[in-house]
Amino acid sequence: MTERNRDMHDDEWLAEPLRGLMERFAPCRACPAVTVASPRRMLPARSEVVGVLDTLANLLFPGCHSREPLPPDRFDEIVRARLSGSARALRTMVESTMAFLRSEGAADMPADAAAFARDTVAEFLRRLAGAREVLGQDIQAAYEGDPAARSTMEVVMSYPGVYAVAVHRIAHILQTLGVPILPRIMSEHAHSLTGIDIHPGATIGPGFFIDHGTGVVIGETCVIGSRVKLYQGVTLGALSFQKDADGNLVKGIKRHPDVEDDVVVYAGATILGGNTVIGHDSVIGGNVWLTHSVPAYSKVYNSQPEPLISSSLVWEGPMI
Amino acid sequence: MTERNRDMHDDEWLAEPLRGLMERFAPCRACPAVTVASPRRMLPARSEVVGVLDTLANLLFPGCHSREPLPPDRFDEIVRARLSGSARALRTMVESTMAFLRSEGAADMPADAAAFARDTVAEFLRRLAGAREVLGQDIQAAYEGDPAARSTMEVVMSYPGVYAVAVHRIAHILQTLGVPILPRIMSEHAHSLTGIDIHPGATIGPGFFIDHGTGVVIGETCVIGSRVKLYQGVTLGALSFQKDADGNLVKGIKRHPDVEDDVVVYAGATILGGNTVIGHDSVIGGNVWLTHSVPAYSKVYNSQPEPLISSSLVWEGPMI
Amino acid sequence: MTERNRDMHDDEWLAEPLRGLMERFAPCRACPAVTVASPRRMLPARSEVVGVLDTLANLLFPGCHSREPLPPDRFDEIVRARLSGSARALRTMVESTMAFLRSEGAADMPADAAAFARDTVAEFLRRLAGAREVLGQDIQAAYEGDPAARSTMEVVMSYPGVYAVAVHRIAHILQTLGVPILPRIMSEHAHSLTGIDIHPGATIGPGFFIDHGTGVVIGETCVIGSRVKLYQGVTLGALSFQKDADGNLVKGIKRHPDVEDDVVVYAGATILGGNTVIGHDSVIGGNVWLTHSVPAYSKVYNSQPEPLISSSLVWEGPMI
Repeated sequence: MTERNRDMHDDEWLAEPLRGLMERFAPCRACPAVTVASPRRMLPARSEVVGVLDTLANLLFPGCHSREPLPPDRFDEIVRARLSGSARALRTMVESTMAFLRSEGAADMPADAAAFARDTVAEFLRRLAGAREVLGQDIQAAYEGDPAARSTMEVVMSYPGVYAVAVHRIAHILQTLGVPILPRIMSEHAHSLTGIDIHPGATIGPGFFIDHGTGVVIGETCVIGSRVKLYQGVTLGALSFQKDADGNLVKGIKRHPDVEDDVVVYAGATILGGNTVIGHDSVIGGNVWLTHSVPAYSKVYNSQPEPLISSSLVWEGPMI
Repeated sequence: MTERNRDMHDDEWLAEPLRGLMERFAPCRACPAVTVASPRRMLPARSEVVGVLDTLANLLFPGCHSREPLPPDRFDEIVRARLSGSARALRTMVESTMAFLRSEGAADMPADAAAFARDTVAEFLRRLAGAREVLGQDIQAAYEGDPAARSTMEVVMSYPGVYAVAVHRIAHILQTLGVPILPRIMSEHAHSLTGIDIHPGATIGPGFFIDHGTGVVIGETCVIGSRVKLYQGVTLGALSFQKDADGNLVKGIKRHPDVEDDVVVYAGATILGGNTVIGHDSVIGGNVWLTHSVPAYSKVYNSQPEPLISSSLVWEGPMI
Repeated sequence: MTERNRDMHDDEWLAEPLRGLMERFAPCRACPAVTVASPRRMLPARSEVVGVLDTLANLLFPGCHSREPLPPDRFDEIVRARLSGSARALRTMVESTMAFLRSEGAADMPADAAAFARDTVAEFLRRLAGAREVLGQDIQAAYEGDPAARSTMEVVMSYPGVYAVAVHRIAHILQTLGVPILPRIMSEHAHSLTGIDIHPGATIGPGFFIDHGTGVVIGETCVIGSRVKLYQGVTLGALSFQKDADGNLVKGIKRHPDVEDDVVVYAGATILGGNTVIGHDSVIGGNVWLTHSVPAYSKVYNSQPEPLISSSLVWEGPMI
């Protein structure tokens, strides 16, 4: 069968299953969340959100991630152009997101999406410089906290924990200003790249360092103090969820732990619950499971199993 | 040294190490898996597989991930064009994969790769609508199971667990239809983006939700019931492997646990073994290590270590 | 308001916050790490490093990841062109990185960055064939160690552990030859794609297999023997850090464990400390926390909690 002939016969094998599938898609045609007539009233594509995020994140470390030289005499011009481009794009995305959610029937969206977007992005820019200064302390904490770090440049260029925290500093401002969906898309992008899942609602003090990071989860209502250090696989999560009289989850209450200043949590520890407070200057050991508070200066660690010695090369027993 | 001169001298520094390296590559030249003369008989590039996968995954939520508006009067036309384009591309990939494996000597490949590919993709399309309905239940479970979720749109747009399960629903159909390699490339793509590793062979009931997800591993022979919820870092894995008389692993036997309906497994639990059954309505706590069955309605959790209190700021002891 | 009018008014809402932000960026203008006047003296973009890395990693398995056929009569020509292109690009990146660090004041950079780069990349090519042979043993170990593996081709095309180890074999040569920053960018790229974080300084014997892999951390000063197998979530990390008289971390000492030949470590185990040695032929169970040595042939595993049985459907107790 020639390539040409095959194309002509394609409709036959495809026609019947495609017809069946299209019938099953029919209900979507009437769904306002699916069929959108105007680009002014739709969610931005994830790639657009990520484009703006990456420009902003790189501007927090100007020069470090650039493809082209950033000569001193053109510094202002280049940085200003990137900042204003990002601000305009962000404004458009905030506006179309609010308009989309309002057209879908969300009750708490502002009537004037354009004005909300403009004022929100202006305030975002005002707060960005502060985030950058906090991030400077985060980078210093990473450099000082990891004996493998050779230079702060290496830290900025290659540490996933620094990237995830930089994205959080940006997403948290937008979340605090009431922007829906976009902060979560940003934090999930960082999650995808780093394995570090920080909800944009979490409150995190300066000098925060996550080493290695894969598998870290920090819940929405966590409050973390200054100079805290987490290793990979640490969960600061929710314990059990309150339900209302109808059996639905109660949303919006404190569900995640507080971690006070100067705490270190080793790899794989799971700390749960909205009433759980890890007192300042505590150390939580690896793989600990903890659902209650511990006072300041605590050391909490699991006992270590005794090794069983056996000369059999292949282990076929029931326990491992 | 000018740039020009350097290029002319490049051959000198490069010539000797390159010659040595090419000699070491010589055996590859005769390897049929490496040197392929025809595009009709080779494995597709990962990026091609991912391209088709992403179009299909987005079609399971039409409109949500689009870059352009999807107006109601063009809905059918656009969705049909994307579906038929994906089906044709998938058919080509299945055919060239089967032809490649047959040319490499695989015994169990069909003689007529073209007919197999056509019939398999047609059947895949017939099953896709069912997968979409199950996925609707998965999305609802995510929205109801996470107090931080504000809308199902946020869930669809940003939850990695929803994306990984959507990819699994697609890859599992192809795996069940006997397509080699491509389902695994799809599941590993989702693994790379989400940290969630679901073998395409795993059987998973509706209303399945993985929260956060990084580090989750679900093995090939797992059977998971309805409305099961897993947190990050949960392993449903193999215990020890049976070997045959020659010391080779026995492939194709049941190696991974069963998890019955309405079970919740908290972060970091490791559950292993093909004879292990987690009874329905059970809760498995964080960081538990479990290699035997537990009955319905079980609560299984580790004891929690007592904190040691110490006022020393720097911990230099042997245990942490 | 028309689109046109809005653009004209853009300067108003943007002007004040942008002016404030630019003032806060002012100190960057004088920072040599930020403002770079010449492409010959700057860090390469991450995407450039990754481009060369991927070409090299694919050449270690010629043909497997290609988009186009690699016919036997053009094999030498195509492979040689890719190798020499990668070598030239790598030379340029090494040279500009060394020149950049020297211009920033790093004391230990060679005066002649061009000569260092040329000799280093030549030596790198000489060692690449050896890395490829070791990697052949790694692939064989993955195929033999996973009952789900159907063919070595599937292993090469889709196993994240194989990719992460291939990148490590490349990055480790560069690290050993004294190239700064680039090896870490390479290993962090693999970390981002696979969730497997192997410091380029780690020493790892042949036949090494990491199954699933998400959350694995292998520290800089680890020494791992032959035929070792790790599962997802395993940490081979540092215990506590020595500080000097001024309270700064001491860098460059042995901080991470040794793992001898033929050891298996199950999911989620955390093994810490520079004096910790896991004796050959040992098995470490899932979720174990270990900070001391165990002898050869040890089996080390946690006890398993007894299930509590309760018929209540919703668990509201204090422990989970």
